[in-house]
Amino acid sequence: MSPDERLRELGIEVPEIPAMPFKPALVGVHIHGGLAYLSGIGPVGVRGVIGGDMSVEEGYRAARQTGLLLLGRILDRLGTLDAVERWVKVLCFVRSAPGFDDQPAVANGFSELIVELWGEEHGLCARSAIGVSELPAGIPVEVEATVALR
Amino acid sequence: MSPDERLRELGIEVPEIPAMPFKPALVGVHIHGGLAYLSGIGPVGVRGVIGGDMSVEEGYRAARQTGLLLLGRILDRLGTLDAVERWVKVLCFVRSAPGFDDQPAVANGFSELIVELWGEEHGLCARSAIGVSELPAGIPVEVEATVALR
Amino acid sequence: MSPDERLRELGIEVPEIPAMPFKPALVGVHIHGGLAYLSGIGPVGVRGVIGGDMSVEEGYRAARQTGLLLLGRILDRLGTLDAVERWVKVLCFVRSAPGFDDQPAVANGFSELIVELWGEEHGLCARSAIGVSELPAGIPVEVEATVALR
Repeated sequence: MSPDERLRELGIEVPEIPAMPFKPALVGVHIHGGLAYLSGIGPVGVRGVIGGDMSVEEGYRAARQTGLLLLGRILDRLGTLDAVERWVKVLCFVRSAPGFDDQPAVANGFSELIVELWGEEHGLCARSAIGVSELPAGIPVEVEATVALR
Repeated sequence: MSPDERLRELGIEVPEIPAMPFKPALVGVHIHGGLAYLSGIGPVGVRGVIGGDMSVEEGYRAARQTGLLLLGRILDRLGTLDAVERWVKVLCFVRSAPGFDDQPAVANGFSELIVELWGEEHGLCARSAIGVSELPAGIPVEVEATVALR
Repeated sequence: MSPDERLRELGIEVPEIPAMPFKPALVGVHIHGGLAYLSGIGPVGVRGVIGGDMSVEEGYRAARQTGLLLLGRILDRLGTLDAVERWVKVLCFVRSAPGFDDQPAVANGFSELIVELWGEEHGLCARSAIGVSELPAGIPVEVEATVALR
């Protein structure tokens, strides 16, 4: 099954991209040289700090929601998830309370969504997970990624 | 008009790259596969925290200054801005006071300079803006980027 | 001399990749389009904050150890360091105490190891060094990188 087919099969709903509370000078998806560079995004409207007022499980769900927003941007730009052959690189920033040290468990909320749709062979890729103190609009997670197009 | 011509037309002055207060083991511009990878840089000599001792407007100007330093590195390495066909990817780190959440407004100081010179079509690209607690030499902003060469 | 030969000549020992204290959904080395994307890693088992309970010299050694772990992943995936023609891009996150501002001196521990093995021409590349508040498992340094394959 293709990513589009798996999306339907699993009944996963891709949300509308919310209006941003700021006017960033960027494009959500930038295509160059067979790759699409996906700008950082997070679950706008959710504010929180993982390990503080949000648990690691809530962080996992916020990262999954971030993945759905990136899928929305791909669909908006390319019309189909099937245009993405494989995921290449993911960089995940987790807004972390002092002492919170399980950023990978949060980032897995993103990566496991991608693997559900593209499978391990095309969905697993290079990834870094980093703890930061602040993110735009107080979002708990921000993810940027690079994907290879068919 | 080309970026070089717009630079002259707008009377934008590109500063000398200041001597770094440390000896980083890096090259400022690394070319590979039709792309130039630009090392992170910031307005060395300025110390500050956005949302703390620096306002968002001062952060915007610091990000614009960071852009001028990157232009300086491009000119130093390639001799002309026109060698850069388009901007591909920008990653902007903003040294943020607790609770400061408008990193995109700061990063716009960088992006809007690029759009002045390359136009929206070639200057707008994928971008992420992240809040961090500390940056080298206390600079308030650090930007790294990838650009496509002609 | 090739990187493999220099490794032997210098008697540098590449450690086993330690079992991760978490289950990240990623691959350590992801190859695409002539590049290998290396996931972020750090000296798992070491906890600390540079400028806090760890000195800049200890941070330098932690960054060097991080480099050895990345070499281990390259050897594990490609069988030889000689498969890597040159380093393209390094992004180094340094877990920093408030006010610590010499992230580049820490990152040099990584970069100077690479230069020992690949030489300046192929080992020096674009690099950014960023201070962050938290990293997975409390590691003091995390480095991700992109390298070009032969």
